[in-house]
Amino acid sequence: MANHVVIMAGGIGSRFWPLSTPEFPKQFIDILGCGRTLIQLTVDRFQGICPPENFWVVTNEKYVDIVMQQIPSIPESHILAEPAARNTAPCIAWACWEINKVDSNANVVVTPSDAVVMNPDEFRRIAGNALDFTSGRDAVVTFGIKPGRPETGYGYVQAGHCIQGEVLRVDAFKEKPTLDVAKMYLEAGNYLWNAGIFVWNVGTIVGYIRAYKPEIAGIMDEMAATGNVKGLFPQCEKISIDYAVMEPAAADGRVFTIPADFGWSDLGNWQSLHEKLEHDRNGNAAVGNVSTYECTNCVIHAEGLKRIVLQGLDGYIVSEKNGQLLVCRRSEEQRINEFSSGQTV
Amino acid sequence: MANHVVIMAGGIGSRFWPLSTPEFPKQFIDILGCGRTLIQLTVDRFQGICPPENFWVVTNEKYVDIVMQQIPSIPESHILAEPAARNTAPCIAWACWEINKVDSNANVVVTPSDAVVMNPDEFRRIAGNALDFTSGRDAVVTFGIKPGRPETGYGYVQAGHCIQGEVLRVDAFKEKPTLDVAKMYLEAGNYLWNAGIFVWNVGTIVGYIRAYKPEIAGIMDEMAATGNVKGLFPQCEKISIDYAVMEPAAADGRVFTIPADFGWSDLGNWQSLHEKLEHDRNGNAAVGNVSTYECTNCVIHAEGLKRIVLQGLDGYIVSEKNGQLLVCRRSEEQRINEFSSGQTV
Repeated sequence: MANHVVIMAGGIGSRFWPLSTPEFPKQFIDILGCGRTLIQLTVDRFQGICPPENFWVVTNEKYVDIVMQQIPSIPESHILAEPAARNTAPCIAWACWEINKVDSNANVVVTPSDAVVMNPDEFRRIAGNALDFTSGRDAVVTFGIKPGRPETGYGYVQAGHCIQGEVLRVDAFKEKPTLDVAKMYLEAGNYLWNAGIFVWNVGTIVGYIRAYKPEIAGIMDEMAATGNVKGLFPQCEKISIDYAVMEPAAADGRVFTIPADFGWSDLGNWQSLHEKLEHDRNGNAAVGNVSTYECTNCVIHAEGLKRIVLQGLDGYIVSEKNGQLLVCRRSEEQRINEFSSGQTV
Repeated sequence: MANHVVIMAGGIGSRFWPLSTPEFPKQFIDILGCGRTLIQLTVDRFQGICPPENFWVVTNEKYVDIVMQQIPSIPESHILAEPAARNTAPCIAWACWEINKVDSNANVVVTPSDAVVMNPDEFRRIAGNALDFTSGRDAVVTFGIKPGRPETGYGYVQAGHCIQGEVLRVDAFKEKPTLDVAKMYLEAGNYLWNAGIFVWNVGTIVGYIRAYKPEIAGIMDEMAATGNVKGLFPQCEKISIDYAVMEPAAADGRVFTIPADFGWSDLGNWQSLHEKLEHDRNGNAAVGNVSTYECTNCVIHAEGLKRIVLQGLDGYIVSEKNGQLLVCRRSEEQRINEFSSGQTV
């Protein structure tokens, strides 16, 4: 059975302004300064698992040209252009209805486009195991990231007893916890970060969506029959795959997890980018041609500038793209939406 | 007798990097964000005193195209391209030898290209008085700026008794003083900043240079006879007009001054630019599309960027031009040469 990969690439990455903008968001940026954008790195890590012609990208219609440019190997018909963002359940449903048309036995991996994995070999090993497990079963495997800290920014899966090899049953999905609860999860050892990466057979997904979200399944059937994406897709409920399918499926004992440790990060904010980039001895992490004097713990991303000289900054974000510059304290990064929309002095 | 203006525009403005670079220095930049560059403002303030065809610019040969672009009214033959910088005495000598060829009765004002004058009407009044005084006399008038603070960054002229109207005798030129001496000067009241603006008849200058710097006069005569600027000009001694001519002429009682108060600044550093720009209520002065949050006492010049957002900066310089960005503490501005030539982290 052939493997297919569905990449969800509709996010706008507003927390990385001005690096990421609604016109050119994070997943299309070389945020690590490694020469590859996040979506390109996402494709790269499925090398050997999925042939180029079996990739699918679901994105907003305004990003279609960027996707074609950055992933030239993808068939144009595999770029699914959402006329409006409807969260992950309709996004995954559409892709799987399309895959089901061409190969009703396909194995499918669904992945975000904007996370990083520092150990792709281990990622491929886990993905291979998950595909082996789901190819013969009516089951979904979610990758459960072994937590390294009591993170309050992620959802968790509560792992239960072992099914086979590394595969554990998922007893429940847990929403973003408070710090106390996150500490308890870390201590308990059987709570894993929900990375939003799912593996299942296409028939399984379609069946789960029919069972747990029949309204969305109905819209998908009509879209498949009429091709009227613009009219029908926006009618879907805005709902995540976790709420729509995973939670009820877990309650029915049909969701499994493989605990994974492949250097995953969702790169959700400057803090996590700072952690993933290399640091100088003063804790500065820079992408771009940057010279620092008496600077500590800064994170700098300004590849568009020819040269950046910074002096006397402790704990700042410095970011530039397309003529927009942000300098702010790292402690204030949750205000970046305010800064990006703010008034001029 | 016709008035001529000689604009000295050979400086490299290294203290304003990256705004000012050796390829495009300060005098050619709209540093005040008013729509006119410093050299254009210099031309503007002689409106009514000097007709466009009587301006002369002495500059480095690499800036000739910029001068032609910024002052299209100037005759091309009036742009004197120095093959090498030789300080102000050879620069002024060359211009005056040229003016002497076309009009041996000309009255001449010599001025830097990179200072600002906030009250051009008063400037013109003083210049008119100086030209009246020197047109019939073998004398030089230097503008003496009434000091507003005990500045240690400027040379001073020591004014003596009144000659006529506002014109005083200059008893001596004084080099940049220590702070204690500068305070004494301010207290005494008869010490004025030497703005480097001189008014004299062309025959007077030529005569003074022949008298006090015969070596330079000899090179000028040979240049006039042969046209061999490239070979001869660099042979001139590197010396300022103050040392070469003003000091000995003052000792001979041939230098005069008009105390002036027309909002002059040499814009020699970011501190003086910060003073001349308008401030917001937090003491920030900005040229460019700048939004500030919790910023105080910053000076920002980044017209090339579409948008700048700054947060949490107190007392910083933020400057960008042509893809080069500097963020540094204002207290460290004397290190800008180090920053501009520094190594990359």
